[in-house]
Amino acid sequence: MSAEIRRIRLDLAYDGTDYLGWQAQAGGATVQGTIESALTRLTGGTKVRLRGAGRTDTGVHARGQVADAALATRISDAELLRALRRMLPRSIAVRSLATVDPDFDARRRAIEKMYRYRIDRSAAGDPFLARFALHEARAFDRPRLDDALARLPGRRDWTGFAGAACAVRNRVRTVRAARYDEQGSEGVFTFTADGFLNHMVRNLVGTLLEVARGRRPPESIDAILERRRRALAGPTAPAKGLVLEIVRYRGDPPFPDLPIRANPLV
Amino acid sequence: MSAEIRRIRLDLAYDGTDYLGWQAQAGGATVQGTIESALTRLTGGTKVRLRGAGRTDTGVHARGQVADAALATRISDAELLRALRRMLPRSIAVRSLATVDPDFDARRRAIEKMYRYRIDRSAAGDPFLARFALHEARAFDRPRLDDALARLPGRRDWTGFAGAACAVRNRVRTVRAARYDEQGSEGVFTFTADGFLNHMVRNLVGTLLEVARGRRPPESIDAILERRRRALAGPTAPAKGLVLEIVRYRGDPPFPDLPIRANPLV
Repeated sequence: MSAEIRRIRLDLAYDGTDYLGWQAQAGGATVQGTIESALTRLTGGTKVRLRGAGRTDTGVHARGQVADAALATRISDAELLRALRRMLPRSIAVRSLATVDPDFDARRRAIEKMYRYRIDRSAAGDPFLARFALHEARAFDRPRLDDALARLPGRRDWTGFAGAACAVRNRVRTVRAARYDEQGSEGVFTFTADGFLNHMVRNLVGTLLEVARGRRPPESIDAILERRRRALAGPTAPAKGLVLEIVRYRGDPPFPDLPIRANPLV
Repeated sequence: MSAEIRRIRLDLAYDGTDYLGWQAQAGGATVQGTIESALTRLTGGTKVRLRGAGRTDTGVHARGQVADAALATRISDAELLRALRRMLPRSIAVRSLATVDPDFDARRRAIEKMYRYRIDRSAAGDPFLARFALHEARAFDRPRLDDALARLPGRRDWTGFAGAACAVRNRVRTVRAARYDEQGSEGVFTFTADGFLNHMVRNLVGTLLEVARGRRPPESIDAILERRRRALAGPTAPAKGLVLEIVRYRGDPPFPDLPIRANPLV
């Protein structure tokens, strides 16, 4: 009488402030662990394993994280979604849940990701953005910042911007877009690539902010990339400004132009 | 050598989630107490007293709170502002600080206030709005809600919507606007009046949501107002959706149409 095993895809958003990142680990709540526990309870006790497209760090947020899991249950997708939404805390939202091709793999099938990093440019510091943006009101040298950003796109070895915890050997990734936009008192960095290394976006932002403040020449980006030395780059920007916005799979439309202002879920 | 006493006006925004409201009291941090402590330290130790235009409750937010204080210091407005911004936590923003007419009184001189109450209408529940909106995805009966809202504006005794802690005897206030708007997955109630009683907006919202869900006839609003009985009204809506948006003083422009989506500081 056991139910057939099926694979489900979950599209997730979360406020990462109070989690030790995506990946299940000892020592505190993680997004993966919280959802796995709920799915395990819902489906009868056999430990459910969730695979996430992006392993977001401690404090990093997501609006478009994608995950998959194999489940042995007769509960319909719609009922699972309702039950999961009731069980999960407000800090984690299941945007959708659907049965997919048994071969779907949220991480390996991903072809491109978009991360954004938000900057609160208001003089006073907006309390409503305190969890979701880095406050940086000082003047930016936009021509130099744009010069530095223009040096990033391309297929390169990103070792110079990888965190110490980066465990992968092949550090070649293709960055397609790297830009900075402002509207009113909100600024946002946008990066798209076929993959990102551990801490890569935060190290890029930390370095780019030094360029924007006039403390580092735009050309230094080339040296960091060529010499592949993390020590040449700037500091790791705080986690709170970073959001995994979108994960693309084969057949998905191109990345949309997201509004600069924090886009709510739709 | 003592400095002359001058009066300053502060325009403030805060995330009220972690405060026991505006007013200084024992038992935990308040917005007033936190700012008073900082101003007292900055100006040399004589206890500074702050008067706020609206006494927001525990968990209620503000984008446009106004306060005033008498200070005996030679520190300029600009320096005070910079120092205060450095001292205060990210949850409290001083939008501006200026020396004003010695007779200015943020509370008594206020002629009108605008409060808004935000509703997260997304099915999934937006984690980025968890601190700032009530999540309510069920269908709303808009014609009935609008009918109920249309019964509110006017000069009336609001005892039926006042909280038990309401200490004032004269409960006659003039509500000028009462509306509900939606855009995408965000909804917002807007109320303007020459004054609000304790819990008045949250009791109005709790009652209006019952109308919107079809659980209460719009006409019941009239009975609550006429019979002045709190027991006839709906529950008090949670604090987290409520924001003191704007306080108007003589000579200020009329209230602007605020965007439905959370407006950042400008």
